[in-house]
Amino acid sequence: MSLPTRLLLLGAGRSASALIAYLLRHAPAENWQLTIADLDPAPLAPVLAAHAAYARAVLFSTDDAACLDELVQQHDVVISMLPAFLHPVVARVCVRHRRHLATASYATPELRALDAEARAAGVTLLMECGLDPGLDHMSAMQMIDSIRARGGRLTSFKSYCGGLLAPDSEGDNPWRYKFTWNPRNVVLAGQSTAQYLEDGRPRLVPYHQLFARAEPFSVPGYGDFEGYPNRDSLSYRPLYGLDGIPTMLRGTLRRPGYCAAWHALVQLGLTDDSVRLGNAASLPWSELVAACLPRLPLPHWSPVGWVTDYLQLAPNSPEMQLLTWLGIFSLEPVGLANATPAQLLEHLLLRKWALQPQDRDMVVMQHQFEYELAGLVYANTASLVVLGDDATHTAMAKTVGLPLGMAVRRLAGGHVAAYGIVLPTQADIYEPILHELAAEYDIRFTEGEEMCLMA
Amino acid sequence: MSLPTRLLLLGAGRSASALIAYLLRHAPAENWQLTIADLDPAPLAPVLAAHAAYARAVLFSTDDAACLDELVQQHDVVISMLPAFLHPVVARVCVRHRRHLATASYATPELRALDAEARAAGVTLLMECGLDPGLDHMSAMQMIDSIRARGGRLTSFKSYCGGLLAPDSEGDNPWRYKFTWNPRNVVLAGQSTAQYLEDGRPRLVPYHQLFARAEPFSVPGYGDFEGYPNRDSLSYRPLYGLDGIPTMLRGTLRRPGYCAAWHALVQLGLTDDSVRLGNAASLPWSELVAACLPRLPLPHWSPVGWVTDYLQLAPNSPEMQLLTWLGIFSLEPVGLANATPAQLLEHLLLRKWALQPQDRDMVVMQHQFEYELAGLVYANTASLVVLGDDATHTAMAKTVGLPLGMAVRRLAGGHVAAYGIVLPTQADIYEPILHELAAEYDIRFTEGEEMCLMA
Repeated sequence: MSLPTRLLLLGAGRSASALIAYLLRHAPAENWQLTIADLDPAPLAPVLAAHAAYARAVLFSTDDAACLDELVQQHDVVISMLPAFLHPVVARVCVRHRRHLATASYATPELRALDAEARAAGVTLLMECGLDPGLDHMSAMQMIDSIRARGGRLTSFKSYCGGLLAPDSEGDNPWRYKFTWNPRNVVLAGQSTAQYLEDGRPRLVPYHQLFARAEPFSVPGYGDFEGYPNRDSLSYRPLYGLDGIPTMLRGTLRRPGYCAAWHALVQLGLTDDSVRLGNAASLPWSELVAACLPRLPLPHWSPVGWVTDYLQLAPNSPEMQLLTWLGIFSLEPVGLANATPAQLLEHLLLRKWALQPQDRDMVVMQHQFEYELAGLVYANTASLVVLGDDATHTAMAKTVGLPLGMAVRRLAGGHVAAYGIVLPTQADIYEPILHELAAEYDIRFTEGEEMCLMA
Repeated sequence: MSLPTRLLLLGAGRSASALIAYLLRHAPAENWQLTIADLDPAPLAPVLAAHAAYARAVLFSTDDAACLDELVQQHDVVISMLPAFLHPVVARVCVRHRRHLATASYATPELRALDAEARAAGVTLLMECGLDPGLDHMSAMQMIDSIRARGGRLTSFKSYCGGLLAPDSEGDNPWRYKFTWNPRNVVLAGQSTAQYLEDGRPRLVPYHQLFARAEPFSVPGYGDFEGYPNRDSLSYRPLYGLDGIPTMLRGTLRRPGYCAAWHALVQLGLTDDSVRLGNAASLPWSELVAACLPRLPLPHWSPVGWVTDYLQLAPNSPEMQLLTWLGIFSLEPVGLANATPAQLLEHLLLRKWALQPQDRDMVVMQHQFEYELAGLVYANTASLVVLGDDATHTAMAKTVGLPLGMAVRRLAGGHVAAYGIVLPTQADIYEPILHELAAEYDIRFTEGEEMCLMA
């Protein structure tokens, strides 16, 4: 029997659950020895008990550079689920010790700067192998390559992704949303100008307009959604080989009504993170809302009246129902002293949007594309819906962890030929992963009905 | 004759012209030896020729730490006109060598962290001695102290400052504005939530509303102005001893119409600095404006039509006149490749708003205050207008440099008793400076007519 391949997983938070299960499942047949390094390895003990022959957990603190160095040196392939800002550090150690690395995070300019050195050292830095980025690249490229193989030319590519609630977990939450991802990032989402391409012309959307311009669409069997554009859709053109494409947009999806209500919060200034208010923790929410109005409100008006008047919304409008449900018109104290509006909003939402143990999340992705073929223009969609099992075995953990685990299996098996920064945009990487996701986990994209738009 | 006091001026850019003139004027009588350290000392030669007995210029680069160390050690008082971000470095060297420091910049938290060490070393770090911050503190405190001395209690304090054009230099520029200060800062002005106090209640203004909420006011003899709130008005309460004051606002002033037109630029997203557009330098301005609209404009419409339709402005409205004058509806190329909207706007404004050699600038400051005295409520204003002589001898250079020069004279003469971080809010510092400004330079605040508002 050949020597085992030694895998090192850095970081074993909740979002790594599906990845760990996948690695343990394949370790015996693949002859892997798995080390899971985490600041708090104790909770892993019961999980690993049945896998002691090929898996162990070790204590690892990200500020212990010597420990990182030693761990990397003792393994063949490193998988990082650490916060993305730590990846350049990890990648540098990997290059130094000639160990491959796989992550579900963006290949940032700082990481790309290591490309030449990694190539020279024969090291693969396999990045963007989770959900978004990850599964989005794989499924988009499979579609794009297939259209190209038929002689088609893409004229429009829009792609939306989002982590939401399974329909049966929405309950009476009118936002139809809870936190399945970093809450702070959700509150600060979109706080820069978004840009995309439409009919060959650049489009810019400043933050204060972003949530007013969501586009509706539906996913068969799962109802209606809406999407707002992400910060930068243009950088995906070269990545997907779509440099001349006239329409290109990537966005984030929510359930209908979310964006209009969030737009109201943006208009009020409640998502701002730039100024600490010097407030008391006992400040009532309604007084914070009053502070955001263009004029000091008349005392006999209700907070709901102030806001409907300012934002020109009907008192019983969906927006006002969503805002009222949050409790921002109540006398409830904001609960944090000297905080930014965004911090106070996050503090409120952490209670309102907390995933309960029995809640199931839902990951949705939809690609919308148009292409010319033999003089005709066609439109179609490809949609993915993945449901979580509970608040631990989430759809988010599956869709991030499984593609990453499968990418690691390809990498550890010697099936990734390239060195340097590698993304899963090549068929020899994405095909086996998409096939395995569908065959083994029923995670698959469903194409819509192809429509012929015009001659 | 006693030993001379050795003064070191770091930085001799255009904004230091009035300060240098002041220091040279007083050097003989005060027995000063002045060293002016600058990256480009050559242009100072003709200025200093007549003052060689007590003034010299030396080459100094801010990245030469050894040179800074040596220069500071060789002098008794250091004056820094370097960019504000360098002041912590300079201040640390001053504390180490036990040399006093004077600047026209904010006492930031990083500088305040040196307070205890400076006190222990017997070093005075005299900060915020220019115009804003500087003259604003001095004049506000003189007024506040005078009201207090009469037994009055301030209930409202609003203070606006701005650098504009002298009326006879406005020409046909409908913005009535040119750059007399850092252009980038003007383009990015207000890009965070502003907060102030009104009738004892907190007020927040998000960026996208800031320029829609300017307040009008007038200055006798100089016509009408409007002011928008600065980022943080609240931190001035403890500084001015106004902790319980119900209304407190600090703002920036412009000529009427500027804010409404700038608001249109903000709404379009043209002041955004967060995303590079990947554009060609040849992109026409009208196409950039089209990119900012909520929908791609119909081809037969005019760019002016697009924007009036989107922003609900009349085609002949003042806002549209100001925007048209800038040329943003023209086919003129934006001139910079892969830039942010804010960079493109700055690039355009640098041409449109460049101070011409014969142009005179104008600094305006107005304090608006209300106070209770013996059961009555009074309102009054104190206004300052300073005109520049030309594009070199600007009002900005005078109002920054003269108070700083006078503060240095107090400091070098041993008249500033305190050590550590010192601001000019005490009468023993501000009184002689305000007196000298009025007596020697005719720079003085004019009080309005006191009005009794109500019993």
